Order: sequence, then structure tokens, then C-alpha cells
Amino acid sequence: MFKIKDYKIGVIGLGYVGLPLAVEFGKLTKVIGYDKNSKRISSLKRFKDKNKELSKKEIIRSKYLKFTDNFENLREANFYIITVPTPINNLKKPDLSLLNEAFRIVSEVIKKKDIVVLESTVYPGATEEISKNIIEKNTNLIFNKDFFLGYSPERINPGDKKHQLKNITKIVSGSNNRVKKIIKNVYGKIIKKIHVSKKIIEAEAAKIIENTQRDINIALMNEFSIILNKMNINTREVLKAANTKWNFNNYVPGLVGGHCISVDPYYLAHKSQQLGYKPNVILSGKKINDQMHVNIYKRIKEIFKKKKMNTRISSLLVLGVTFKENCSDVRNSKVIDLYKVLIKNFKEVKIYDPVVDILDVKNEYGINIYNKFPNKNFDCYLFAVKHKEFNLKFLKKKITNFEKKILFDVKDLIETKYLSGNL
Amino acid sequence: MFKIKDYKIGVIGLGYVGLPLAVEFGKLTKVIGYDKNSKRISSLKRFKDKNKELSKKEIIRSKYLKFTDNFENLREANFYIITVPTPINNLKKPDLSLLNEAFRIVSEVIKKKDIVVLESTVYPGATEEISKNIIEKNTNLIFNKDFFLGYSPERINPGDKKHQLKNITKIVSGSNNRVKKIIKNVYGKIIKKIHVSKKIIEAEAAKIIENTQRDINIALMNEFSIILNKMNINTREVLKAANTKWNFNNYVPGLVGGHCISVDPYYLAHKSQQLGYKPNVILSGKKINDQMHVNIYKRIKEIFKKKKMNTRISSLLVLGVTFKENCSDVRNSKVIDLYKVLIKNFKEVKIYDPVVDILDVKNEYGINIYNKFPNKNFDCYLFAVKHKEFNLKFLKKKITNFEKKILFDVKDLIETKYLSGNL
Repeated sequence: MFKIKDYKIGVIGLGYVGLPLAVEFGKLTKVIGYDKNSKRISSLKRFKDKNKELSKKEIIRSKYLKFTDNFENLREANFYIITVPTPINNLKKPDLSLLNEAFRIVSEVIKKKDIVVLESTVYPGATEEISKNIIEKNTNLIFNKDFFLGYSPERINPGDKKHQLKNITKIVSGSNNRVKKIIKNVYGKIIKKIHVSKKIIEAEAAKIIENTQRDINIALMNEFSIILNKMNINTREVLKAANTKWNFNNYVPGLVGGHCISVDPYYLAHKSQQLGYKPNVILSGKKINDQMHVNIYKRIKEIFKKKKMNTRISSLLVLGVTFKENCSDVRNSKVIDLYKVLIKNFKEVKIYDPVVDILDVKNEYGINIYNKFPNKNFDCYLFAVKHKEFNLKFLKKKITNFEKKILFDVKDLIETKYLSGNL
Repeated sequence: MFKIKDYKIGVIGLGYVGLPLAVEFGKLTKVIGYDKNSKRISSLKRFKDKNKELSKKEIIRSKYLKFTDNFENLREANFYIITVPTPINNLKKPDLSLLNEAFRIVSEVIKKKDIVVLESTVYPGATEEISKNIIEKNTNLIFNKDFFLGYSPERINPGDKKHQLKNITKIVSGSNNRVKKIIKNVYGKIIKKIHVSKKIIEAEAAKIIENTQRDINIALMNEFSIILNKMNINTREVLKAANTKWNFNNYVPGLVGGHCISVDPYYLAHKSQQLGYKPNVILSGKKINDQMHVNIYKRIKEIFKKKKMNTRISSLLVLGVTFKENCSDVRNSKVIDLYKVLIKNFKEVKIYDPVVDILDVKNEYGINIYNKFPNKNFDCYLFAVKHKEFNLKFLKKKITNFEKKILFDVKDLIETKYLSGNL
């Protein structure tokens, strides 16, 4: 008989993915929530999630959950869930250093019969490959005899209150049928809909193609936007019409940042190229998405030119800096790349974002931004992120001489008639 | 007051697009249905649509409709709808010869105040460009003063009984506000949901991006299938898992043929390149889709190799030859390209298709095919089209030694467990 209390869960990495898992499981069984970031641990011990995904009340309700920055405390666990980031390096190749570190930690504390489940996005085959490399080498344990693996891709959508851990379908898989069943039962205690993949490698592939599909579809919209702009056609009007077809998929052009969509396709591309196949569709998508901020700058420059204004003596305010609307995460935000292009070409560029922690931006990028709307007159306003407070009423109130300003909308904040340009 | 009887409609081109339009309008007002193909006209006069989209009864019900292969009869009309094919040439550039011919015909019969609506897919800007070139030159009429234009992209989905002319949303647009309103009213008499685009060029763009989106998404699935196959991962299982995500778009790998998806992206790419922008996403998608038949052959060859069999002394039956399931259209079918690769490498290759007119295949490609299941034993069966009669029961009954044969499934006809390979 399956009993959740038989499983003591060690969660490694307490970010957007790990914290909700730790909190949910901690309502049912002992959970050791580990993060190497001591600051994060000390604020979590005060029930404070600075990502604003979980409230104080929710964290308190997780009565069997303990937070720690000392990995030794993970020894108590027999079921590990790894949720560390898997970014790319400067060469756009997978940077598995955090993942390797997590597996090394597990290899220090793992015991016979333990199960290790990975939630981080990787290229297909990585879970088994890395765990064998690290756990088998650092211990006497043999894979699928002494210790077991699982893969369950995270589907966390930061800032999205509708699709939360508990109500989405979760894919699980395991290194043999018995383990698959255990992992299904464990996750089944906190999530209603579980899809069991036959093989770990299939579950790994599923995750990576989901995000790659999104990336390429946004890339296609960006390509449309570039082409249509050259023909003086407004992309928004075209998409409005196209969306009336029953099987049109509603994507919009835009900046693709963050830790999933902008990164994951490179993992698949990397593996594919190792196998001797250059994935031209995927790479062409990445190429255009990675350069879209330059296209936005060019369009703004064109508008200035048409108005016989000079960017070099003009000022611009960017509204929004996070990688996504209503989300405080600023890592991998393409608005920063856009900002870097803008400051080279404008006399003055400032950023306003009411959602982000301004210290995060300072620490990560060395940029001072406003979290109150600056009491100052700019020549141009660039709407970069669709935070919910950025609506027409707000903008009309805050921007002096709203009608006369150059307004460029990247994210469909307000209607075309108010704008000088849009993606 | 708008009265439909004030408009006498000339439909030019009576294929998949033109015939349903002519039949619907012919229930309400005088329609001259013109096609230069005399054979088509003579069978339509006997109320017979060999495309099987419309029944005899439906055509008979269209009491004000007359068919003709003599364009002079179009003189009676004052509202023209052009629905001729817009294919590509051998260099994959737009072949506008049929469209030019249609406009020339219109220029012979057009009178002051007449309206010409194009339904064929073109690159943005083409409707105005071509009509000016031809109508203004061949007549004394001036565009938007003496004659008027509209564009309303066809959304016919051959073989799809659910999304039919009358119940889909139709985009319309016109060369000025008055004409836009007339066109909306005319189409509104036969279709409930009308979306009015502000500009003709926007409606043209909407159509072409719809099909380009579909093309690139299938291309991405094909790329996934190639990569996953290299890793011995079954794409179907991965897609099954990925489809459990709320925002995953359900596409599958496959051959992309026919007259829309396989052609339209080249129209947009052509225009884009004229404007100095190489659309890498669109072109990378086309490249992979145009070569997918070669990949299918390679996979079958691999299966033979693994089984230590030689294709050169083996026979193969292809099931299905049309470009789409449950549709008799064989033009631009990629199964033909696949067949051409297969006959070079197998001892014997035959095609069976119960839906297609075998004379069409003979005339178009010089290939003799079966429309009854051949009473003969093949080494390999390739499921290329998902006609509804191709189900497991049928295949088990028809294929001797079903379990022992090499079965390759391009289109998800039967479960993986029966197959030697699938896309």
C-alpha cells in the first residue's frame, strides 16, 4: 500500500519551481527544502517569497516543510526532487554547472533505494547521463539497482494564477515500472492529472519541444512583423483577421526572454548538432528572437526620422523591464538588451517598472531604474512589458502631453490609433 | 437599401473554391459560373462535382446559377469573384499566369461601377497591382473611380465537412468604404460571420500568414521527428505527453502537399525577398517540408537494413496518394515525390488509393495506381494518407501476414505496437 508519509522529500533549489512543490508536499509529509542561497532561505524561514508566487499564509500551511541552506540536512530524505535552473553559457550551449552541483549534493546524501527526480529542463537523455556520471562515480550505488531516477518536467508559468502546480497536468516517468508507479503516486497526492510517459527520455523530449514550439511561433510572428512593416502593413490588424480562422494559433510578436522559451531550444539544438543534424527551423527561430530588440530600435529610429527628430538629443522612457508581465523576474530579460541599444543612441534613457525589485536590477545589471513613475517629460515612451497597471487610463494620466508623444508599443498595451508604432 | 438581386455575380474558376460560392449565391441571385475547362463545365451542367464537395441535390437547388465555358457570358455580371489557382513555378516563385488570365477575361467584360473580388491567395499588394496592370491597361476604366476591388480570402478546407463556406468566418475588404460595405453585404447573404479588414492588403496578408503558420508548425514537427528518431525516441509518444500542456498546439509531422500550405509561404517569401529581407524562418520550414519524403525513404531503408533485408529485391505498397485524407485531389501531392524516390530503390512499388480518380493520377503523373486493394503480397506497406477506410480492421484483413510485414506509418493510422516505424 502506498503511503505518502513513507517518502521524505528533499527539494533542491527553491525558486519558481521548487518552492511550490516543497510547500505542497510539506502539507502531507516531511520535506527538506534546500537552497544554497542563504538569503533566500532566511526570508523563506520568515515565510516570505520575494517572487510573490506564494503568500505567507500558504507557506505557513505547509507544516512538515523545513528550509535549510545546509545540504547535510537532505540526508533525512529518500525522494529527491531537483529543480535548479539550466541556463545557457555565452556560446549558447547548455550550462549544466548548477545541475551537476545538485547531483553532486545528492550523491553526498543518497542512500540505497532512494529515488531522484529531475524537474529542470534538459536535452533528452541528460537525466540518466548526468546522474550516472555523478552519482555512480561518487558512491557505490548502481543506477536502477541501488538508486532510481525519474523525470517530471516543471510546467510553472510565472505570473499565471490560472495554471498552477495543482491544476495542471503533470508528466511523470521513471527508470523502471515500479519507480514510475511510486513517482506517479507521490505526485498524484498533490496533483490531480498525471500523464505517465513510458520512458524518461520521452518526458525530457516533451518538455523541450513544448517550449521550442512556443519560441518558433513567436519567431514566426516576429518575422511577419518585420516583413509586414516593410510593406507598411500593421501586423496587429492582420493578426486580428487571421485569428478569425478556426485553426489559427494566437501568438503575437515580441521580445522572448526569461529562463525557458529563450533558452530551451538551444538545449535541443545542441543535442541535435551533436548527433550530426543542424536544426535549421529551431535555429532560425532563435536567431530572429535573439535580435528582435535591434529591430524595435530601428523602427523607433525610423519614426524619429519621419518626424524629423533626432534620437541623439531626445529622451526615452521604457515601461517595464521584467521578462514577462506581472512577474518580478528580471533574469534574461530582453528589455535589458533593448535598453543597451537605446542608451547608445538616445541622449537619455530611463526605465520604469512597478513590479520588479529595483535592487535586483541594480545587482544583476548595474542599472538604476524607477519603481515610481518619473515626474519628468520624455520625448518617447516605449511600452515593453504588459504589466496590468499599464492601461490607457494610467498612461494618459502619467504621460504629460500624451497625444503629442512618440509612443511605441511592443506588447499591445493600447490601441493602434494612439501609437506612433507597434510590433 | 441593399438588395442582393442588384448584384449579378460572375464567378471565374469553378474548383474547390469557386463552385461552393457559385452554388450558394445562385440560390439568391443570378450567377454566371465560368470555367475554361469545358469538361468541368459539361459535368457541372449535369450537376456532377467530381471533387465530391457538393452533391447533385445541392447544385440543383442553386436555381439562378448557370455554368459556362464562354467568358462572353460574364458580361451580364456586375460583381466578379476570381477563384483561380495561384501555384508556384519550378523555381518556387509565384506563377500568376492563371490569375493574370482571369483578370484579362474580366477586363474584356467589365463595365463602369463593377466590383472585382479576388479570393485566390496572393502576396500582399497583388490584387491592386495586377488589376491596375491589366484592367486599367485593357480598358478606359480607372481604379477606384470607374471600377472597384475587393479581397476575400478563401478558407476552403477540402474534405472537411465541419468547416464549410457557410459556417466559417469570412474576411472581406474593399478598395473604399462604400465598396467594403457592399462586399460585406453580398457575402453576408450567404455567410453569417464576416470580419471586415480595413485594407485589402491586410486581408491578403492575413490569408498568407495563416497558411504559413501551419506550414512552419508542421516543419517544426518534422524537425523534431528527425532529431528524436536519431535518438531512438518515438515522436508520437513525445507528442502525446506534450499535448497534455494547456497551450501546446496539436500538430503532427507529415508530408505537406496540396495547393495552399505547400505553396503559399513561397508567395510571402518572394515578396519579402523583393523588399530585401530574407525570411529565414519561413524558408527553413519550407526546406524541411519539401524534403520530408526523402527522410521517410531513409527511415524505411534503415528498417530494412536492421532486418538484414534488401530494398532492391523487395516490394512495397503505398496506401493513399492524395495530398490530403478523404479528398480526391492529387495535385501537388508529396506522395508522388515519395513514390519517385521509392521506385528507384525498390524492386517493385505500387500505389493503392480508393478515393482518387485513377485517371487523374494517370493524366497528371503517368502512373498507374490501384483503386481496389491489390490481391498480392508485398514486403512492406507504407501508410501515406489517412483515408477513413484505412483502419486497423481493414489493414489486418487486407494485408496477408499482417504481423510479419514491415509497416511504416506516416499518418498515425494505427498504433505504434503494430509498426516497424512511424514519423
